[in-house]
Amino acid sequence: MNETLGEIGKLALEAKKFAKMTAQEKAETLRAAADGLLADKERILEGNAVDLRRAKENGMAAGLQDRLLLSEERIAQMADGMRQVADLNDPIGEVIETLRRPNGLLIEKKRVPLGVVGIIYEARPNVTADAFALCFKTGNVVILKGGSDALHSNAAIVDSLRNTLKKRGIDENAVSLIMDTDRETTKEFMRMNGTLDVLIPRGSAGLIRSVVENATVPVIETGTGNCHIYVDASADLNMAVDLIENAKTQRVGVCNACESLVIHEKVAPKLLPMLYQCLKEHQVELRGDDAARALCPEMKGASEDDWGREYLDLILSVKTVANLQEAIDHINRYNSGHSEAIVTEDKANAQKFLDEVDAACVYVNASTRFTDGFEFGFGAEIGISTQKLHARGPMGLEALTSTKYVIYGNGQVRR
Amino acid sequence: MNETLGEIGKLALEAKKFAKMTAQEKAETLRAAADGLLADKERILEGNAVDLRRAKENGMAAGLQDRLLLSEERIAQMADGMRQVADLNDPIGEVIETLRRPNGLLIEKKRVPLGVVGIIYEARPNVTADAFALCFKTGNVVILKGGSDALHSNAAIVDSLRNTLKKRGIDENAVSLIMDTDRETTKEFMRMNGTLDVLIPRGSAGLIRSVVENATVPVIETGTGNCHIYVDASADLNMAVDLIENAKTQRVGVCNACESLVIHEKVAPKLLPMLYQCLKEHQVELRGDDAARALCPEMKGASEDDWGREYLDLILSVKTVANLQEAIDHINRYNSGHSEAIVTEDKANAQKFLDEVDAACVYVNASTRFTDGFEFGFGAEIGISTQKLHARGPMGLEALTSTKYVIYGNGQVRR
Repeated sequence: MNETLGEIGKLALEAKKFAKMTAQEKAETLRAAADGLLADKERILEGNAVDLRRAKENGMAAGLQDRLLLSEERIAQMADGMRQVADLNDPIGEVIETLRRPNGLLIEKKRVPLGVVGIIYEARPNVTADAFALCFKTGNVVILKGGSDALHSNAAIVDSLRNTLKKRGIDENAVSLIMDTDRETTKEFMRMNGTLDVLIPRGSAGLIRSVVENATVPVIETGTGNCHIYVDASADLNMAVDLIENAKTQRVGVCNACESLVIHEKVAPKLLPMLYQCLKEHQVELRGDDAARALCPEMKGASEDDWGREYLDLILSVKTVANLQEAIDHINRYNSGHSEAIVTEDKANAQKFLDEVDAACVYVNASTRFTDGFEFGFGAEIGISTQKLHARGPMGLEALTSTKYVIYGNGQVRR
Repeated sequence: MNETLGEIGKLALEAKKFAKMTAQEKAETLRAAADGLLADKERILEGNAVDLRRAKENGMAAGLQDRLLLSEERIAQMADGMRQVADLNDPIGEVIETLRRPNGLLIEKKRVPLGVVGIIYEARPNVTADAFALCFKTGNVVILKGGSDALHSNAAIVDSLRNTLKKRGIDENAVSLIMDTDRETTKEFMRMNGTLDVLIPRGSAGLIRSVVENATVPVIETGTGNCHIYVDASADLNMAVDLIENAKTQRVGVCNACESLVIHEKVAPKLLPMLYQCLKEHQVELRGDDAARALCPEMKGASEDDWGREYLDLILSVKTVANLQEAIDHINRYNSGHSEAIVTEDKANAQKFLDEVDAACVYVNASTRFTDGFEFGFGAEIGISTQKLHARGPMGLEALTSTKYVIYGNGQVRR
């Protein structure tokens, strides 16, 4: 598995034939691959130990080390995740639409694999097994480019997966890992037109930006979330506090956490002290505009820079507005197209917000934290798309599929 | 309308608000814009005369001059096209899916505009009105970059469209034309992340390649078609000749025309003389492999280069194969993912071909010429997507839409 990128690409194209397997064969293979990971746990933990030792030597931050760390329990979780994907409905082959034309042509729109999917991610070895499971289930060959800090962990995991495939007589190149860690190879990977049907970056805003800027293959942007909650004049203020507390503090550092509040000036005098009290208990730092600070002088000031920030931290910016339109305009100016919520008892205001705020998910009276494939009932999640093409919002298995028109004729020619 | 690209982008983002209009208002506006084009025909013809004079001075090929030429009749056709789009169902606002979650959340997946669409095309002024109509109908702001040879024609058409919008109190920046013709501006246009939600190139393979290579915004690739017809051992040979004649000669120079034949060696001795006779009448030049030429010595030889060529001309390559698998492999190696057909009376072979050939449209016993939005019954066509993300095959209005999750709660928080 130390091929050049060109060789990996060539083998990936040949491996596309594996997708002829039945849904049942794919599910059984995923279960076998889960068993294989457990059987190979020693070797995986050894590889991970090498990565961790180097990470410590290089002074990697504690939080990142934790994401890199594997344990027996975490390997078991990876295997469980693969079994869950195995149990999901197989979307491939479904006929989505049937058209009958006056000339007798029967046209079926059928769900098919994308072909070859590239995934580029950071030093999180659990993504390796996860990405393979989702791609294999949808009949896609996957080429993985993980963070170099996780290279030995990833190599051990991918070896295990490929061994399972080989044992079952399946082309093991259905999954491959790019071992070269230099920047040139990464750039070349983003430009494998003719091989990659899509490239999905999973990770930080910086990684995603780099992919968007350098890739010539189609990309699905995921993940950046500067999510707002707007508290309307008619809001139930207790509900507002509950939703804000949940969206800010239930899990910090995730893309669907709330990063910014927008508050109608009529309710600010009552709401801000309640909020300040509640969030203080969670050590959340508030950064407000002048009007907010006038009502709550303990609050720090917000600068222009704060409105556009995805803190991923215990910080929340606070903007006051004179009306709903101002709130909508502020959100549309600064949001990242992820998840936005209004708290209101006014149906017309709710509808206006839902219609006019431009984001993948718009909520009335609920926490932004629900933007998640599992919470939506998809049973799996590839990521949260913040772009508008192909897939928007939480992506389930269908986001890894394309369609194909299959046309049945009996000699029709065009006149 | 001589703003810099940055200004055009800013105005386009503000103009997105026009999409709040009802379906009826949009349809009426399109009809008014069609009337406006007819009323402004003198000015449009004047602009076109300037473009044509320069084109002749610059020695533009006759075929390209014809595509550039406008006439009263052609302006009337443009107006008719706009009225037809006005009459189509409006896809915006449709609820595609409804999910009810155990926690009481109601999730609706709703069809919404993409936002700002960029169209980049060659010197074909009819695309200007057409692209505006499709984008306006779907609530999208459109920024047009037409070929510089059609600048005066396009400017007159866009002026007319903007005047109609202004008269009706609609933000005229819902459509704008980039007047700068230098390469730097074109490159900058392809990199307007944050403004453009998608960029669609309409035109030659060279234009599309340049966009794919240079763009950082999402792109929908359209149009290149190296389409094959495979004649199986069990084919009805009269049907095969009819289909090939139609797919090659009914209209040359279109992306869904047949460019390459693949013939089972068992039927080649009988089929080739029939074909040669038929296609000779249409002045089609055949270029075959050695086996084909042995049977039909008048045929020219095909080189490796021929298999991958989209001739867009009265030329057809001929490859003989020993079996279906060889045919599928050949097609998957050389095709451009557009349209591929099998002629066969064998159901199992048909199914294998339909399943395994990787293309937007796969046919059994029908001409590849049917790959077309109108032939599919979509009532409009933005282009034929040969990529797998977002839209594949003929694109109707839906290809110009995205979706948005709208979530109704009553205080739900995530635990």
